Amino acid sequence: MKAIVLTQKNKYPEYTTFNIKENYEYKEKIKIQASALNHRDLWIIKGLYAGIKYPIILGSDGMGLYREKKVLINPGQYWGENEKVQSKNFKILGLPDHGTMADYVYTDKQFIYDVPTHLTDTEAASLPLGCLTAYRALFVKGEAKKGEKILISGIGGGVALFVLQFANAIGMEIYVTSSSDEKIEKAISLGAKGGVNYNNKNWEKQLIEISAGIDLIIDSASGEGFKKFLNIINPGGKIVIYGGTRGKINELIPQIIFWKQITISGTTMGSDRDFKTMLKFVEEHKIHPIIDSVYKMEDQENAFKRMESGKQFGKIVLINPGQ
Amino acid sequence: MKAIVLTQKNKYPEYTTFNIKENYEYKEKIKIQASALNHRDLWIIKGLYAGIKYPIILGSDGMGLYREKKVLINPGQYWGENEKVQSKNFKILGLPDHGTMADYVYTDKQFIYDVPTHLTDTEAASLPLGCLTAYRALFVKGEAKKGEKILISGIGGGVALFVLQFANAIGMEIYVTSSSDEKIEKAISLGAKGGVNYNNKNWEKQLIEISAGIDLIIDSASGEGFKKFLNIINPGGKIVIYGGTRGKINELIPQIIFWKQITISGTTMGSDRDFKTMLKFVEEHKIHPIIDSVYKMEDQENAFKRMESGKQFGKIVLINPGQ
Repeated sequence: MKAIVLTQKNKYPEYTTFNIKENYEYKEKIKIQASALNHRDLWIIKGLYAGIKYPIILGSDGMGLYREKKVLINPGQYWGENEKVQSKNFKILGLPDHGTMADYVYTDKQFIYDVPTHLTDTEAASLPLGCLTAYRALFVKGEAKKGEKILISGIGGGVALFVLQFANAIGMEIYVTSSSDEKIEKAISLGAKGGVNYNNKNWEKQLIEISAGIDLIIDSASGEGFKKFLNIINPGGKIVIYGGTRGKINELIPQIIFWKQITISGTTMGSDRDFKTMLKFVEEHKIHPIIDSVYKMEDQENAFKRMESGKQFGKIVLINPGQ
Repeated sequence: MKAIVLTQKNKYPEYTTFNIKENYEYKEKIKIQASALNHRDLWIIKGLYAGIKYPIILGSDGMGLYREKKVLINPGQYWGENEKVQSKNFKILGLPDHGTMADYVYTDKQFIYDVPTHLTDTEAASLPLGCLTAYRALFVKGEAKKGEKILISGIGGGVALFVLQFANAIGMEIYVTSSSDEKIEKAISLGAKGGVNYNNKNWEKQLIEISAGIDLIIDSASGEGFKKFLNIINPGGKIVIYGGTRGKINELIPQIIFWKQITISGTTMGSDRDFKTMLKFVEEHKIHPIIDSVYKMEDQENAFKRMESGKQFGKIVLINPGQ
């Protein structure tokens, strides 16, 4: 079959013929019609992910045909029994197991779900990993409630946009940050009340001015800006982090954390229960994932370059025209 | 009346005659028989607390007679309706309102509680602020459960010892840190399974070795050592901070926080509900506060010096021999 295969560090994967050995662990075969990129794929390409092995078919997101039905695959596999945290057996589709950017993906039956009927194939392929992460961050860890004020940092990324759509669906007051005024405008058109450009020196003050304080922050960046969240957050508020693109967190003043009774939670992916409730939520609220762009499989290098540019607003999708 | 009155920054308070003006806000009068010190009093003496005013009678902890019954006072006053965080009206007895280190304290009726019957006067006086803080940190924020492994940092302080006694009462596996081997031994005699001296370079490794990972950390120090907690804590674990004696928190690696699904919560004092459930817990489990030492009111300077030395193990109590 044809697949997008990574063979070495710091080189784009190749769209090439690649056959999975016959005694491969997983027996259920899904004919992939569309897959989607995650930042995770980029970290893997750059060699910045634990447990990398070559060759590997990339891709955590995808939809396809299984027994003549449209399905998607939960890429967060073998979470285990404890809802609080993934077990040692937890693994994500697309490393260590071969991923979705191929003619076929092989997986275990328990990870196969029907596609919500209101979604196009492209939208369905965009859903799995980012939407799962967003759901757990917002609802399980963030305990988000109608009427609360939420700040979503780095709007434009897949997870951040799902958080925005979910928060909007339940009636939160939404604020965003970005380094792009254009992305902030787009977020406002999707339901955000306001936003600030974090390249402005005074972004923290601006945000406090327009929001009068935030109840819940969902952040993927961490890094030097994180300490400012302690001033932006309301007493009793929560900060949930699902990423660390800007590195270590420094200079947190403990007195602010305990006096304001702040909670900082880390989250990644989600459990089987999270995946199921996420799909139900998407179906009930008729959420349509925001698509940035669609590429053909053979044009995958440009898709990865688009993600690397950081200019995308929404998911980047690969379609498999042969299927 | 006689009272321990602070009149200026960085000078010990005086045990002197001091009369509260007749139109004082609070009408219920409690004849104080014993009061107790908190680190808070020391911060106030040193001028390191917000909203300091002079002259002020110190003291958050105390027991005494009210309508011929032994009572204690909840020093965490006007918390408000939101269990998550104190309201803007919240104040702590002993600043801004005159405190317990006096012949009489004046307060509002809603803050007066019967003394649990198994306690001596000295023990009862030791209870309020530290026990409230410990209860909320361990049970409300830490959601402590039987069988879990807990680490209590800086054992010997009032709050830390209450946490130890509570954790022991519900059957947790307890580990402690201290800069004093003697305090660690004392903690073990009180039910801790083990402890490490944080002056050892390898305290983090030692602790992981003896505990094989911790589920819940209750910390009062913050500072440079805090980042090591991310390695000590088990996946899905919680870190609760109620103090920041060692200053800012630095170099937190976000990838550890989100991959291990760690929660870091700040807490201070407690709500009226927390105070009530704490008293009930103390009564049910027949908790006896650990008393380090007892001083007469007139000997208060030595009591504060004892606290400043950091050598105490348990509460430092002032008795009012005239009452």
